[in-house]
This record gives sequence, structure tokens and C-alpha cells, in this order.
Amino acid sequence: MANYKAPLRDIQFVFDEILDSETHYKNLPGSEDFSLELRDAIFNEAAKFTEHTLSPLRRVGDEEGCTWSEQGVTTPTGFAAAYHQYVEGGWPGLSMPEQFGGQNLPLSIDLAVSEMVCQANHAWSMYPGLSAGCRATLVAHGTDEQRETYLHKLVSGEWTGTMCLTEPQCGSDLSFLRTKAEDNADGSYDITGTKIFISSGDHDMAENIIHIVLARLPDAPAGTKGISLFIVPKVMPNDDGSLGERNTVSCGSIEHKMGIHGNATCVLNFDGAKGYLIGEANRGLNCMFTFMNTARIGTSLQGMCHSEVALQGAMNYALDREAGRSLTGVKSPDRPADQLIVHADVRRMLQTIRAFAEGNRAFSYFLAQMSDREWRSEGDDQKTALDLLSLLTPIAKGFMTETGLEASNLGVQVYGGHGYIREWGMEQNLRDARISTLYEGTTGIQGLDLLARKVMSDGGANFGQFVAMVTEESQQMAPEFAEPLQQALAEWAELTALIGAKTQQNLDELGAASVDYLMYSGYVVLAWFWGKMGTVAKNQPNQDAFYRVKYGTAQFYFQKLLPRTAAHKATIETGAEVLMAVSDDDFRELNR
Amino acid sequence: MANYKAPLRDIQFVFDEILDSETHYKNLPGSEDFSLELRDAIFNEAAKFTEHTLSPLRRVGDEEGCTWSEQGVTTPTGFAAAYHQYVEGGWPGLSMPEQFGGQNLPLSIDLAVSEMVCQANHAWSMYPGLSAGCRATLVAHGTDEQRETYLHKLVSGEWTGTMCLTEPQCGSDLSFLRTKAEDNADGSYDITGTKIFISSGDHDMAENIIHIVLARLPDAPAGTKGISLFIVPKVMPNDDGSLGERNTVSCGSIEHKMGIHGNATCVLNFDGAKGYLIGEANRGLNCMFTFMNTARIGTSLQGMCHSEVALQGAMNYALDREAGRSLTGVKSPDRPADQLIVHADVRRMLQTIRAFAEGNRAFSYFLAQMSDREWRSEGDDQKTALDLLSLLTPIAKGFMTETGLEASNLGVQVYGGHGYIREWGMEQNLRDARISTLYEGTTGIQGLDLLARKVMSDGGANFGQFVAMVTEESQQMAPEFAEPLQQALAEWAELTALIGAKTQQNLDELGAASVDYLMYSGYVVLAWFWGKMGTVAKNQPNQDAFYRVKYGTAQFYFQKLLPRTAAHKATIETGAEVLMAVSDDDFRELNR
Repeated sequence: MANYKAPLRDIQFVFDEILDSETHYKNLPGSEDFSLELRDAIFNEAAKFTEHTLSPLRRVGDEEGCTWSEQGVTTPTGFAAAYHQYVEGGWPGLSMPEQFGGQNLPLSIDLAVSEMVCQANHAWSMYPGLSAGCRATLVAHGTDEQRETYLHKLVSGEWTGTMCLTEPQCGSDLSFLRTKAEDNADGSYDITGTKIFISSGDHDMAENIIHIVLARLPDAPAGTKGISLFIVPKVMPNDDGSLGERNTVSCGSIEHKMGIHGNATCVLNFDGAKGYLIGEANRGLNCMFTFMNTARIGTSLQGMCHSEVALQGAMNYALDREAGRSLTGVKSPDRPADQLIVHADVRRMLQTIRAFAEGNRAFSYFLAQMSDREWRSEGDDQKTALDLLSLLTPIAKGFMTETGLEASNLGVQVYGGHGYIREWGMEQNLRDARISTLYEGTTGIQGLDLLARKVMSDGGANFGQFVAMVTEESQQMAPEFAEPLQQALAEWAELTALIGAKTQQNLDELGAASVDYLMYSGYVVLAWFWGKMGTVAKNQPNQDAFYRVKYGTAQFYFQKLLPRTAAHKATIETGAEVLMAVSDDDFRELNR
Repeated sequence: MANYKAPLRDIQFVFDEILDSETHYKNLPGSEDFSLELRDAIFNEAAKFTEHTLSPLRRVGDEEGCTWSEQGVTTPTGFAAAYHQYVEGGWPGLSMPEQFGGQNLPLSIDLAVSEMVCQANHAWSMYPGLSAGCRATLVAHGTDEQRETYLHKLVSGEWTGTMCLTEPQCGSDLSFLRTKAEDNADGSYDITGTKIFISSGDHDMAENIIHIVLARLPDAPAGTKGISLFIVPKVMPNDDGSLGERNTVSCGSIEHKMGIHGNATCVLNFDGAKGYLIGEANRGLNCMFTFMNTARIGTSLQGMCHSEVALQGAMNYALDREAGRSLTGVKSPDRPADQLIVHADVRRMLQTIRAFAEGNRAFSYFLAQMSDREWRSEGDDQKTALDLLSLLTPIAKGFMTETGLEASNLGVQVYGGHGYIREWGMEQNLRDARISTLYEGTTGIQGLDLLARKVMSDGGANFGQFVAMVTEESQQMAPEFAEPLQQALAEWAELTALIGAKTQQNLDELGAASVDYLMYSGYVVLAWFWGKMGTVAKNQPNQDAFYRVKYGTAQFYFQKLLPRTAAHKATIETGAEVLMAVSDDDFRELNR
């Protein structure tokens, strides 16, 4: 596979020409003086690190994978060295508070760095990625003492972190959670249970790992209202910050997965391991939800990343590989055949990939700005950001990862039979991408979250505000984008009302519509961003290849991808009845 | 993964209740006396062999893969023993002429056995599968002497065969083919060149391998009209049938692929290897087309097989795994949660998989009957079969493999995070399935073949006959199927006329519409089969779970999947302009 190139021009386009990040940062409390020069310097350094250090380890990580022994997990050759370089570069603390050694930069800067890291090497990105979740949880919910004890080393990156939710019997439904926490009456708890699917749960990159663990106190209510959150270090820290005894948490095995082989997905056994309550007892799930929204945005970003990797690979191949002749006449008369790019169907695939990669990038950085404001602003401004994040996060997670899968799949397809072969890197991209619609809540879970919790729960008020906001923005767009976008927004609102009405009769209508509704919503949101980008590109006085491709891709999106809403609409309208008509017993009988 | 169960009841349903195979065989020259008892006995034996011998080797094949050494390729543990069992069972000669030791049964019987073999173990199925192509080529184009020399051992299965087309510089576009054939003036030729992607190109299962090789004679015209076909044995046979000298063809390496690891995908080096012309000089591609249509039907069958594997796996899990509660109230009050099957969105996924698996099965066996008639009938009956095969083969290859991919992907999705883990077998099914839209002509190639060669080339006459035939058949269907099917047929005809008219102005319109048109066509064809199946199930006096699920799935297909045509229609209508608007140079400039 050709070397990864950080898409700096595209990131800059979205930051400056679409989302006016200069004004955004000027208005963001704590970042008023953040300069675009500093930002660009950071992005350039991230580009170098990801292109030269992480990208070459992408295939190594896939082929070697992680290895387990009783002493712990060994990561692929070069992974630990790259992590040390990352720590030396100060990357882990980019958006962390200065009091713990961080640089206090906006989250949106961190997310752009994460884009490059994930594109260069998804498996590797999971080690710092999970640490970010652990840090965020401690910042939001830890006591002063807990923050003092753990955050310095987590911010420097000397220690990494995990989030331990899933157990063998429970994934999406955490009400079955069984891991126990017994109060030692000395401020500590003994944690006992088995956690599975713990990303970065053990490795050889850092001297300590801080696990954030969901567990149940003895007197806790049943179900999800009896879950508490605990800090469980792999190695107990002494009061002076040095490392003490090994805690009784160990990695029992690692999973054999379809992709992201370079990341250790661990079974963790907590055997009376010492832990500390974080946040209120029995309120663990509420604390987790803070983290989960951030994690979902992070996962949606991965969907965009796989689209970008597919785009780079497919473009390289389509501009180089020769096969057949253009149907409208020879394009390269001096060559025995034309390049793939002359074929309309190849362009359909390439532009589909591009529309998802670049459209989802704009979507991602809009969410990143909202996260900045949610984190730093107050009052109405924070509330607006929170409302937008609340509505858009499940759409982003579901839509960007599903379209990331489609783009990765098309990336393989552009290569023909070669796409199936390891050396080109496209099949790895598809295998790595496949996890993204599963973890951090499957697409089905996102669909339910969107419809039930985010759209219907306030009677559609927040949804309605969003539709009004985008409709107003569309007035500024070129008519070839404004008109279909306005139609789609109106139809989206009608469909939402229809589902709401049906749900009054039958709650299964929610589940029946959920994923089609999520995908429908995603296409409308992407139309918003492509309408903005297409208009900016069209109005740009200095037309060059960059703006012409951008405008062409916007047109492509509206003509070739937005019409997919027609199919989602039709299937939504047929409702739940046909889904539920066959009895469970009949299915069971057939399956004997 | 749970053990594979051969779907005998479903196969029987399609054969007897949908396609009236009794009448079909009675009217088929050479099979007038073929009894359904014999058929069922064969299917039962095939079920045993595939369930007990092949299915347990599925994961072994994936994990071990093939290993290369200078002495040749070693297949995974158990693969060779299973092949010997297959040979002893007489399976390779099922549909071959009796004069070469075959059983002269209809091809359709062979295809049903192939379904079970591929479902149990796609990688393994490639060894006998490629032999079938080699045998068919020899039967159709070999001289009496060639058939006598090679067919007995290929029919018994003692020898296997391959088809050697692709070279490093040419896949879809065979005009670049470089492998040379030099006339030795003794009836033999020296073949020199490199072939890649040769499935089953080397292995340790049989004592000899007969390669069918495309190569170019010294005086051959350039392009595809200068390609000839040669027989190149791995080991030269002596006149008495014993094995003589090793020929100078060798396996240089094997590919590392995304899936079907148990099948050896070989680079074959022909180093002045001795070969024999088969068929006329420079007419090799015409001979290949005979084979290619059969191979494409075989590959379409693989798409159906992956859907069936996904269905079995997903149903097992959805009926067993507990998570959450039904939105309409607790379904299993004695359990801590309900099973996945109660959730509408899970049912959407399960029924999508089922609709593709079972719909594509009916489509497959219709093509199988047409293949029987093409192979055995004469005159008008043969012509009708040929016309139908000609139109439907690219639809089958493209649609069944694309929907097979979707079904396999959903099979993973139903399992949530567990779908990503090797032990459940669903991620292997997706990796194995991924090849099917690539080899034997990508989906893009099928789309062009369909529109340019099969629909437009005779001014739409054959297409029109098909639409008329299905429209007439639809009169017999229950109205809930007949009406939407008739609408879809009419719209399909309109779209075809629209593309035809646009193509008059701009040939790129063909390529621009091709894949959307292919998928549109596939949904209409599947509506035909679901209309038939749904009607039969509805009219069945003895309703049981089997018929209720069948009828429910037919309704699901019409309400939830057929509406996807709306999106394909809309994108077809926007045409080629937006695809070709950006110049190749702009893309090239951006990619610098």
C-alpha cells in the first residue's frame, strides 16, 4: 500500500473555510488567544509523526498481532517505540488541564490529531484512544485526590487507561452486569469479576494501566441503577507516585479478531483487585454516559478515517492501473489501455468514497466545535452545543461508521481481485473498519438512542430546532444544493412526525424505523455539509483543482447519494407490522 | 460456530413447489427417467458429507491456510482426506457423460450439491469447483483424443483442473495478455509466461492438475482476438494413462488473502511448459465464454451460500442470546432479559438475510434448470433457455454476490461485538464472501455486460420478452405480490428505455447506469421469485411454521427490500454528467 498522506489541505478547508475556526476559538473561553499558526504547527507535526512513524507500522501490526503470555501482552514490533515517541511529543496531554501537565488546547485540536493517528494506524490509535476516555472520566468525576494521584501520569502518557464495561453475558444491555465490589471500609473496595472486549486492556507500552471498571456494590439495586464506577490500577501507586505492588487484575487471554490485530482486546480477570469508587455509588452509568458520548464521536471519526484510507488507496490505483478503454473513445492513445479513472462506474465508486470521507470530515469537525463549547462554554452557548451534540452524536456514530464500511468495501472493489490481497492494504482497511459499527453501541443501538431518547423524548422540540437552523442556513447556499436540502429537511420532519404518530399505537414502530431513520438522518446531515462545502467551492474566486473537485463531489453527493433517502423513506413507511408478523415460535420451530 | 445444517427442506421446496422439477426432468432429454427418489438420496448423501466432513474443516482451513514450498502447496489438515472421500463418493462425475465414467445426471443436481459444499466450506469447494470448469471446457471444445486422455481422470476426480486467465498486468481486460505459445510442430506447444490468481493452481490433493491456459501464438492478432486456449498438464500423462515427466509449470508463490485461506491462490510460472491447443487458434476467448457463464452462475451461487451461512448463524444467536426487553413489554418474564429476536431491528436484519438467502436460492435453481435445458435440449426450448441465461447470468452474478456480502455483513452485525471474533465464524463468512464480487468479473463488469451486451445489443428484444413472461406469470400471484411486481416490471422497462435513449447521446451513460441498473434488475427478479414463493406458501392448505415464515418473508421482501429500487431509479435518472464533470487532470493534480 502506498504511504499514508495526512489530508492537511482538507482539514484546513473544513476548519477555516467551512467552520470558521478562527472565530470559534476567539469566542471559546480559555482559547481566545489560540493562534492558527500554533494550530498549523501542531497539525504539521502530527502529519510527520503519523506519516513516518505510525503508517509504516500498520501492516506490521496486522500481520504480527499481539501475543499473550502469563506475564502479559506483547504488542507488535515497533508499537511500543512509537508510543514512547508519542509521549515524548507531548501528544497525550494536548487538551488536558495545565494543572496536570496538559496543554489545555481545545478538544477539536485533539480530534484532528486523532484523525491522522487513526488513519495511519487504527489498531495503534486504540492505546492512546482508551486512555483519553479514562482521563476524561477522572477529570469529570474524580475527587481532587484521585485526580492528583492518577492524572499527572495519564496526561504525560507514562500510564495508559481503559474502560471496562462489557462482560461475557452483557454487552448492549448492562443490566446483567455481575462484577462485584466489596467495601473494605478503608476507602478501598475489592473488585471481583470478568470483563471482556477490553481494548488496550494489557500491553507492554507503559509501566501502568488505570482501569475504569463498572461493578455492583452488595446492596445495589438490580439493573442499571445499581452500577458503580471504580478506579482499578494494574500496579498500585505509592504515595510518592512510585509504583508499588501488582494489583490482582490480570489479562486471561486476548481475542482473535477480524481486524485491528495490533490492538490487544483483552479478557480481564479481577480477582479481589483493589479499587476506588469514582463518583457517587450506583450512579456509575450516568458517569459513563459522559464518557460514552465522547467515545461515540471518537468512533464516528474512525468511520471517516476508514473512508479517507479507502480514498487514498483507490485514487492511487485508479490513476495508475490501466484496463479497457473509455466507452467514449481512447483517452491515452500512447498506452495499450486507459486508466481506470476514465470509466464512469469506477468514478461512481471513487466519488462515493470521497463524498463520505470529506462530508463526514466536515460533520466530525462540526461536532468537535460543539464539544469544545460544551466543555468550555457556559449558559446558552453551552446549552446549544449540548443540544446539537445530543441529537447528532448517534447519527454520527451510526452513519459515519456504516458509510465508512461502505467506503472501505468500495476501496477493495476498485482494486478488483487485487483488493482481496494483503499487500495492497485495502482488505486490512475493510477488516479494521468492520469493528466500528459494533463497538460503542451497534448501529441498532444508535438508531434507538436517536429516535427514542434524542428525537421523541422531548416531543421533537430539539429536532425541530435543528431542522429550523439548517433550513435557515440553506438560504445561503447555491440553489442546486439549497433546494434539494430544503426538500429533504421537510420530508425528514414529516417522517419524524409519522413515526411519532405510529409509535403512539405500537412501540415496536420505534425499533422498526430506527436504523432506516438513522441512515435517512445521516444523509440529510451530510447534505447540509455538502451544501456548505459545494457553495464555498463554487463561490471561490480562485478556482483550482481542489475547488473543482470539491464542487463536483458536492454535486455528485446531491445527485447520486442523497436520493438513497427515497428507499429509507419507503421502508420506514411500511412500519413494524411486517417485521413482527411471524411469531418467535415459528422462527424457533424452523430452527430446530 | 454451530454446525452447518444442509437446508434440504428449502432446496426441496424450490425444486418441487416452485420449479416443478418433476416435470422439468421428465421433459429433459436424457433425464426422462430420473427419479425424485434418486435425487433425494443424492441430496441426503451430500448433506451428510458436507455436514460431517466439510463443515468441521471450515475453521481449520481458515486458521491454517495453505503453505508453499518449492515442492508444492500443502493444503490445511484434513482437506486432502476430505477430497479423497469426495472422489470415492463419485461426486466429481455427477453430471459428466457416462463414456468418461460420469453419471450423466442433470447439471441442476450438481448445482444443489455445490450449494451444500460451498456452504459447508467455501475454500475447499474451490478445488472441485475449478475442476468442473476444466472438465466443461474439455467436453465442449476438446478433440476426441484430448477428451480420452484427460476426461476419465478428471471425471473420477483423480486429477483436478484449473482455469488460467489472469496475468499481473491484466484481469478484467484480457487484451494485454502476454503468455506466449510456440508451436513445436509436433502437435505440442511451448507455453511461457506468468499467471496469477490461479485458484487451486497447486495442492496436495490429487496426483495431477490439468491447467487450461490462455496464451498467444506468435502470429496472433493483437488484443482479445489473438488469444488461444491450451491444455497444460502439471505432470505429462503417458499413452497408457500412467504419469510421466513433470512439466515445466510451477507454483511460484501463493497469495495472502482476506479470506478463503484454505484455497491456494497461486502464481503459476510456465517455463516452456508443454501444452496442447484446444479449440481453434485465436478463438480461445470464445471457448472461455462458454465456461465463463457457467462459472458466473457458480459464483452467484456462492453469494447465496454466504447468505445461508449468515442466516443459520444469525438465527441461532438471535434465538439464544438475551439482551434488553421488547419495547412492547416483557416476553420472557422468567428470564432476566428477552432474546434478541424480539427486537424489531434485529428482525429487520434477520429477515433481510433470509430474503436474500432464500430468494437467491430460487433464482439459482431457476438458472440451473435453464442450464439443464441449454445443455440437453434442442431447438426452441434450448433457445429460450439460452436467452434467459444470457440475460439473467450477469444479474445473478452481480446481485447475488452483492447481496451475499450484505447478508454476511448483517450476520456479523446481529452478533454485536462477538461477530468480530473468530470463534463465532461470522467474520470468516464475511471475509470468505468478499471475494465473490471480485472474481469471475467484478460487479462493474457484470453491470456493463448486462446493459451493453445483454439488454441493449438486440435493441431490448430479449429483455422485453422476459418482462412480458414475468408479467404474465404475475397474474397467478396473490395480489399483494402481483401488483408491486407489475409496477416494478413496468418501471424497469421505462428505465431501460431511458438509458437506451441517453446512450444514443453519450456512451458513458451505459457505464454510469450499469451497477445501479444491475441492482435494480436484481430486485425485480427477486420480487418475481418471492412473489411465486409467497403465493405458494399462502395457498398451502396445511399451514405450518415453514409456510408461515415463507409467506412472512415474501411480505417482508416486498415491503422492506423491493423499495430500494427507488434509490437506484433516482440515481440512474441523474445520468453520467455529474460522474464525468471533473476532469481526470484535476483528480491527478489533487493526488500529487
